[in-house]
Amino acid sequence: MARTSTVSLSLADAAALVAGILRRAGFGEGHVRALTETMVAGERDGCPAHGLYRTLVCVHSLRAGKVCGDAVPVVHDQAPAIVRVDAGGGFSLLAFEAGLPHLIEKARAGGIAAMAINHCVHFSALWPEIERLTDAGLVALACNPSHAWVAPAGGRVPLLGTNPLAFGWPRPGGRPYVFDFATSAAARGEIELRRRAGEAIPEGWGIDAGGHATTDPQAVLDGGAMLAFGGHKGSALSTMIELIAGPLIGDLTSLESLHHDAGAGASPRHGELILALDPRRFLGDDAPAHLLRAEAFLDRFGDSGARLPSQRRYEARRRSLAEGVRIPAQLHVELLALLE
Amino acid sequence: MARTSTVSLSLADAAALVAGILRRAGFGEGHVRALTETMVAGERDGCPAHGLYRTLVCVHSLRAGKVCGDAVPVVHDQAPAIVRVDAGGGFSLLAFEAGLPHLIEKARAGGIAAMAINHCVHFSALWPEIERLTDAGLVALACNPSHAWVAPAGGRVPLLGTNPLAFGWPRPGGRPYVFDFATSAAARGEIELRRRAGEAIPEGWGIDAGGHATTDPQAVLDGGAMLAFGGHKGSALSTMIELIAGPLIGDLTSLESLHHDAGAGASPRHGELILALDPRRFLGDDAPAHLLRAEAFLDRFGDSGARLPSQRRYEARRRSLAEGVRIPAQLHVELLALLE
Repeated sequence: MARTSTVSLSLADAAALVAGILRRAGFGEGHVRALTETMVAGERDGCPAHGLYRTLVCVHSLRAGKVCGDAVPVVHDQAPAIVRVDAGGGFSLLAFEAGLPHLIEKARAGGIAAMAINHCVHFSALWPEIERLTDAGLVALACNPSHAWVAPAGGRVPLLGTNPLAFGWPRPGGRPYVFDFATSAAARGEIELRRRAGEAIPEGWGIDAGGHATTDPQAVLDGGAMLAFGGHKGSALSTMIELIAGPLIGDLTSLESLHHDAGAGASPRHGELILALDPRRFLGDDAPAHLLRAEAFLDRFGDSGARLPSQRRYEARRRSLAEGVRIPAQLHVELLALLE
Repeated sequence: MARTSTVSLSLADAAALVAGILRRAGFGEGHVRALTETMVAGERDGCPAHGLYRTLVCVHSLRAGKVCGDAVPVVHDQAPAIVRVDAGGGFSLLAFEAGLPHLIEKARAGGIAAMAINHCVHFSALWPEIERLTDAGLVALACNPSHAWVAPAGGRVPLLGTNPLAFGWPRPGGRPYVFDFATSAAARGEIELRRRAGEAIPEGWGIDAGGHATTDPQAVLDGGAMLAFGGHKGSALSTMIELIAGPLIGDLTSLESLHHDAGAGASPRHGELILALDPRRFLGDDAPAHLLRAEAFLDRFGDSGARLPSQRRYEARRRSLAEGVRIPAQLHVELLALLE
C-alpha cells in the first residue's frame, strides 16, 4: 500500500518546500523563484512528470556540476526581430524571463520575432513559457532538442531527441489554446516505468539494437532506440527541431548534448527557440473580428466530442487552486531529506 | 493493359503542353508561367498527384468560376516583418512570386519575417515554394488550411483540413533538406483510389459517421471523416495550421473554405502562411561553422539507414532531367482534348 500513499500540500506549501530545497542546494534567488514557479505550475496542472519530482533532478544536475546555480542571463539585441539570451550554463527559465520583455516588444514592433536561448540546461515543459506569450496577446511557438534517444524513421541509430514542440493561441478568459508534446512516440520515462514494472510497451514506441520493432522496453533502452510519433512525418518534424533550435541558434543538437552529458544523467544542455507573432500586426483593425472567428472554430471542438489539448490542464489547475496537490508520500520523503 | 500504358514526354514538351492548355483555358500569362513551372516540377520530382494531372483540376476550377484566371496579386507592406499579398481570387503561385522578394528582404533585414497570402485558390505542393527560399539561403516554413475533411482526435465531425506543413533548410549543392506533408494520416485521393479499387484502407486513416474506426473507404468519404496522422499530436498540429494560416492572416479556415466551395469540387480557397529565417542574422560571423554542424548532423542520416525526406524527390528529379517524364496514356488523351 505504501506505493499509493500520498501527501496533500497547498500550493503555497508546495512552493515553500521546493524553494527551500533549491536555496539550500545552492541555487541563486532568481533561479529559485523561476524554477519553483514552473515546477509548482506543473504539479498544479496535473503533470507530475514536470512537477515537484523535478526538484530532485534539478538538485542532481547541480551536484553533478552540469548546471550553474547562479548564472546570470545576458541579453543580446541580435537583430531587429531576434533577441538572444545567453543562459551561461544555468537553467533555461531565468534566461526566458530575461528575454521575454524584449521578445514581446520586437513581436509587437515587427509582427513576428524570435528568441534564441543559448547555453542553457533544460528540463521544463514549454507550456508555462507559451502561456507568458499568450498572456501578452501573442501567438507563440517553442521547441528545443533534448538527448539523442530517438531513431529517425527508417534508421536504427538514435540521432534525434524527444524534441518537444509547443504552440499557443491567445483566447479570452486566460485559457489559451496550448499544446506541448514530445515528438517521440512516448516519453522516455514512460518506457522506463514499463521496464521497471516488467510490462510490454505498445508497438511503435521503439526498436531494438538490430533496428527491428519491439515491445520489450529493455531492448529499446539498452542499445535500441525510441521512435518518433507519427512515422516519417513526426520524424521529419523532430529533425526540423534539431536544426532550428540547434545549429540555427548556434547551439547543440541532441547528439552533441548527449555527448556533453558523458553519462552523468543530467538534464540536456542546449538551446531553445521561441517565436512570437502579433495578430494585431498581421490584421490591423480587423484583428478583433478574426480572433472571434478563431473562437467560433475552437468552440466547435467541444460540440464535436473532441477535447482541446489544454482542457485537461485547465481542469487540473482549477482543482489544484481549490484543493492543493497530492504527491506520492515516497517523493515527499525524498524531498524533505534534501532540506536536512 | 490500357491501364498501364504510358506516354513519355521531355520536360520541355510537358511544359509546352501544360502552358498551351492553360492559355487556351483563359489563364493570364503570369499564371500560365507560374502554374506550368510548378506542375512540371511536381511531375519531374516523382509526385504525379502534384504533376500534369493537376492541369485538369486548374481548368475545372476556372470553368466552375472558382478561380480568377487573370488576377493580379497586390503586395502590401503590412509591418516591418510581414508582407501580405492579396491574390485576388487567383491561384496562389503568382501571389507567392510577387511577395517573394519582399519576404527575402525582410527576413535578411530583421532575421525572421512572415508572408501572408490572402484570397488565393490553392492546389499546389509547398516544396517548390520552400525551395525558392532555401535557394536564397533562408530557412523556411509554410502551411495552409484546405477543406474540412479531417476530424480532430477524439471527435467525429470534420473540422480540420488535410493541412500541409512544409519546411526547408538550405544545404550546399542545391539539395536542401525539405519536407512537405499533409497532417492527415493519408491523402484524400489515396482513400478515393482504394474506394474505386474496392480495397480496404489501413486502420487510423478514418472513421465512419458514428465516429468509429473503420477500414471501409466508402464509410470515411460518405458522412465519416478522415483522421490526422499521429493521433492527438498530429491533430493539434493541424489545428495550429487552421489558426495561423486562417484567422491570424484574416483568411478562411478549412470549414469556411468548404462552405465557400458549396459542393463545386474546386480547389480550396483560403490563405497561406510562409515564414523565413535568416541563419546569418541568427549567427552572424559564426554562421558558416554552425551550418557545417548541420551538414554533419544530416549526413548521419544516410549512415544510419534513414532516408532524408527530400532524397527520393532529388533522385526522381535527376532521372527526369535526363530522361523526361512518363504519364498515363489516358491522362495524355485527356490533356490533349483540352487543347482542341
